[in-house]
Amino acid sequence: MSLSARNRLQGTVTNVETEGLMAEVTVELGDGQEVTAIITSGSVDRLGLAEGDEVSAVVKATEVMVETE
Amino acid sequence: MSLSARNRLQGTVTNVETEGLMAEVTVELGDGQEVTAIITSGSVDRLGLAEGDEVSAVVKATEVMVETE
Amino acid sequence: MSLSARNRLQGTVTNVETEGLMAEVTVELGDGQEVTAIITSGSVDRLGLAEGDEVSAVVKATEVMVETE
Amino acid sequence: MSLSARNRLQGTVTNVETEGLMAEVTVELGDGQEVTAIITSGSVDRLGLAEGDEVSAVVKATEVMVETE
Amino acid sequence: MSLSARNRLQGTVTNVETEGLMAEVTVELGDGQEVTAIITSGSVDRLGLAEGDEVSAVVKATEVMVETE
Amino acid sequence: MSLSARNRLQGTVTNVETEGLMAEVTVELGDGQEVTAIITSGSVDRLGLAEGDEVSAVVKATEVMVETE
Repeated sequence: MSLSARNRLQGTVTNVETEGLMAEVTVELGDGQEVTAIITSGSVDRLGLAEGDEVSAVVKATEVMVETE
Repeated sequence: MSLSARNRLQGTVTNVETEGLMAEVTVELGDGQEVTAIITSGSVDRLGLAEGDEVSAVVKATEVMVETE
Repeated sequence: MSLSARNRLQGTVTNVETEGLMAEVTVELGDGQEVTAIITSGSVDRLGLAEGDEVSAVVKATEVMVETE
Repeated sequence: MSLSARNRLQGTVTNVETEGLMAEVTVELGDGQEVTAIITSGSVDRLGLAEGDEVSAVVKATEVMVETE
Repeated sequence: MSLSARNRLQGTVTNVETEGLMAEVTVELGDGQEVTAIITSGSVDRLGLAEGDEVSAVVKATEVMVETE
Repeated sequence: MSLSARNRLQGTVTNVETEGLMAEVTVELGDGQEVTAIITSGSVDRLGLAEGDEVSAVVKATEVMVETE
């Protein structure tokens, strides 16, 4: 199974907060940077997401912006 | 200046490819993982994006999915 | 600091409603039109968003649709 | 016919640029601010979009970010 | 009235769940497949969405990914 | 491998058009309705997408709007 989304960042779930229909999942990458995902509580249940899980944060390339300093 | 987008991943631009209205920008993070962004060629010009630039890949949390293995 | 997102509409915050993980922020533009943003409550806290603030509503160009009448 | 998207900004098309599969449409709002949309060339053709058209720029609320100064 | 979004899938609302600011709407297509939409509770109210309604699930083409098996 | 995205519509690829960095992929669902995806040409190559392939069109629930008639 393979998905067209270009970005798949591997990391570890460090927090899962569920409230109503929505959930906030924090994933820590290998270099210590964090990615926050807002997904449905239904998906958290279906995937059984919990702290410590090895996951990927997946993002379609058209959703990524670039910021210069 | 501060933006509501929760995800701001710091890295180095390793490739900028422009063709017509769109451009593909590759950013390498500190742990060697890559992020690909599709932005407009107009934004590449305005920001003066080039290989070697230190940038952040910015993503709104609602655009991030989670994948388990 | 400069972001690739092409759309940055200046206006005034006229309402902030927070409930659980999510928040709804209303921004009134100069011509009286309104923009509604759904962001995380975490971002509302971090930015300290409140009624009367001068802000920009920021949208990536690939997220905008066009409707004819 | 009614759409759930919360944001519908009325304006005038000031530029349509088509190149390959994608098109960039510029819409000027009543207060002089501009909105840029990246849509498919197929949609430009189907809607018959041209300079001077009265249109709305439509954006789902979850796609809007807020920036403070 | 015509919208640039390329995808408009007709179906029947089989569930509407509202909680706080957000709502989850399930639409069943003609071939039995389901589409889930997260929209604001404000939009559910404005459209008067309820089980049994004939609606379309609308998605911008840039938001669609492709998965092979 | 399991992805949080709630929508996974099975169908058959009926057209793949690549031009520059972007590609337009058309997927026909079981009830004859079509889904159009704009993805990168890089993803079309990596997945080896071609007419006749059995695929899923994948969409995050926060990207779906609802339209009433």
